[in-house]
Amino acid sequence: MNKRMYELSSHASVIRELFEYGKKRKEVIGNDNVFDFSIGNPSNPCPNIVTNSLINLLEKTDPINLHGYTSSPGDYEVRKSIAEFLNRKYGCHEVPEKIYLTAGAAAALTISLKAILNKGEEVIVFAPFFPEYAVFTENAGGTLKIVKCLEGSFNIDFDNLEKAICQKTRAVIINYPNNPTGKILDRDSLVKLCAILSKKEKDYQHEIYLISDEPYRELVYDDTFVPFITNYYDNSIVCYSFSKSLSLPGERIGYILISNNANNGDILYKSVCGAGRSLGFICAPTLFQYLIPSCLGYTSDLSVYKVNRDLLYESLSNIGYEIVYPDGAFYLFMKALEKDANAFSDRAKKYELLLVPSDSFGYKGYVRISYCVDSDMIKRALPKFKKLFDEYYI
Amino acid sequence: MNKRMYELSSHASVIRELFEYGKKRKEVIGNDNVFDFSIGNPSNPCPNIVTNSLINLLEKTDPINLHGYTSSPGDYEVRKSIAEFLNRKYGCHEVPEKIYLTAGAAAALTISLKAILNKGEEVIVFAPFFPEYAVFTENAGGTLKIVKCLEGSFNIDFDNLEKAICQKTRAVIINYPNNPTGKILDRDSLVKLCAILSKKEKDYQHEIYLISDEPYRELVYDDTFVPFITNYYDNSIVCYSFSKSLSLPGERIGYILISNNANNGDILYKSVCGAGRSLGFICAPTLFQYLIPSCLGYTSDLSVYKVNRDLLYESLSNIGYEIVYPDGAFYLFMKALEKDANAFSDRAKKYELLLVPSDSFGYKGYVRISYCVDSDMIKRALPKFKKLFDEYYI
Repeated sequence: MNKRMYELSSHASVIRELFEYGKKRKEVIGNDNVFDFSIGNPSNPCPNIVTNSLINLLEKTDPINLHGYTSSPGDYEVRKSIAEFLNRKYGCHEVPEKIYLTAGAAAALTISLKAILNKGEEVIVFAPFFPEYAVFTENAGGTLKIVKCLEGSFNIDFDNLEKAICQKTRAVIINYPNNPTGKILDRDSLVKLCAILSKKEKDYQHEIYLISDEPYRELVYDDTFVPFITNYYDNSIVCYSFSKSLSLPGERIGYILISNNANNGDILYKSVCGAGRSLGFICAPTLFQYLIPSCLGYTSDLSVYKVNRDLLYESLSNIGYEIVYPDGAFYLFMKALEKDANAFSDRAKKYELLLVPSDSFGYKGYVRISYCVDSDMIKRALPKFKKLFDEYYI
Repeated sequence: MNKRMYELSSHASVIRELFEYGKKRKEVIGNDNVFDFSIGNPSNPCPNIVTNSLINLLEKTDPINLHGYTSSPGDYEVRKSIAEFLNRKYGCHEVPEKIYLTAGAAAALTISLKAILNKGEEVIVFAPFFPEYAVFTENAGGTLKIVKCLEGSFNIDFDNLEKAICQKTRAVIINYPNNPTGKILDRDSLVKLCAILSKKEKDYQHEIYLISDEPYRELVYDDTFVPFITNYYDNSIVCYSFSKSLSLPGERIGYILISNNANNGDILYKSVCGAGRSLGFICAPTLFQYLIPSCLGYTSDLSVYKVNRDLLYESLSNIGYEIVYPDGAFYLFMKALEKDANAFSDRAKKYELLLVPSDSFGYKGYVRISYCVDSDMIKRALPKFKKLFDEYYI
């Protein structure tokens, strides 16, 4: 069999390992005594409109249509509703003919990368980054090039980005609100990023696609402005999922949107359709396709995430931890109290705190804390964080 | 972008082209005057238990669990229910640890092939065959080797199969009931096939996997026995979908089953998990995962397919057409009345009959007739088939 596929599964991710460790600990010492901050799974239910709309569809739609194949890129009316929603919300000019419904954001990424890349071409990501970008790029025959964010601020290191882009660069993946830092990309930074990419497109005489992985788009807790990338860059591709906004991670429903201003967008869209076919993805799950129009603009109750973020950020900062201020998603990126984040994560286990070391995100010396958890668990965990801190400083 | 992906989409399939042609004709001359036998989509609704179970799940299950991530290969209890069902029905000894839930049979195939194949290794298919096998094999870096079925009987040509297997052969794909012939593989033929593969495994000192693509498993209309392959061959993989049996083609729910007797089955299963990750497929849609246990053993009302098959087979045979007797699926494979099946298909259009020429199935001189249609349409189409026949023979 294929050795690489075996490796991909047998080298279990650190996140998954921690999660499994936590499950076992809970069996031994009880659920309430383990403080699991490892997994990024929505902790609140989908809004009622999801359940009501699904039941309504099941009760009122002819099942042959409801569960039948749509066209490969998804039902046209559903795609139209998405385009109209985005245009209304962001003032862009997107069209259903450039939207491809997918079984989640992972599918959106594997399909987009497979559509774009030829063997050996490069994809740039900014570390820390979601580790699956490496897996998906490899699957498409491409090579990942990592540009580290600036230490401390975690802003994009534009100087190093300029140096990293070369003739082989075909795409740059961004992910805001970011996993694992929770940061967003402000308008000025996005404008600067786009200017660099546009210049490099001219230098190298080919498109450099900006792929925006946006499962956390709606998870922003202050009045922070999150720019919509097709308004800023022509050759842009949005990979979206309803997983986090509607708390439907298991249902695998999302989309690829190619900017209506992309060069040769028709050809790119056809390549996306071809890649979907090649990977075995045509026709996203139909019941959830038909759910979309009634749920656009709705989200789960996100207030609990804000409560959790504020509580954790303030309390941990007060203890003395150094944390990147997170504008969104449901992650805190906290500096480890020793150089080796794995050692720090192990030390935290002494207090039953499960924190993901940052190495798997391509960045050393930090831990990721997922706060899509019960607020009550956070309150009970705070004294443990204090004790962990004291181990190092008292 | 990737030229091959563009080609895959822009070279629209003949089936899709015929279907689009039919849609346009219907607009011009009316729905009732076009006889569309092109598409293999279930024409009857899912059984009531599907709708009722889905509503029940939505009303009674905590939405965080219902729509949350399961483990990557799918919920363990769901996999267990499938294993137990198969063991009860077929007397096999399968286990949940070797089942991987997928978003449909296409996903099951792309994942299995990616798990097995290394670059340049060969997959054998028997022509005529479902054209996507070529696309999926290519995606996994493999090469397709085609062994033509025996003319007329469409049985496996075992002599040519033996010659085709070589050091590079890693898998053989079978598909019964077959698309496009509707044939099944009887026990004797399966035993013979397995004996050849076992011998070749010894000769070449490596596994040759038998992959059984089984979306039509339940669509058999007489008392025909359809053997279950894990009972006959150790290194076997079943790719199943609930699309056709439950009339849920759009919902993308199926599974990969690795025989519990497969050599190094644990390693193969891990490779499947890695391939699912690589392609972006982890966690099949959860609502439909949880639907499975209540629907195992149920099917849509299949009697209409039998009615259609009998009507078409008898009527067309009586007119004088030569047809392979179809035991299952919802396809008839009929000999074209001239050498060039494309020309014959074009001629049929004169009578508004949409028949898929067999060339895209890797076989010349036939047309595929999908009979998952209204029986009434068949009745109205029969005089057209007569006129088409008379064009050639009067």
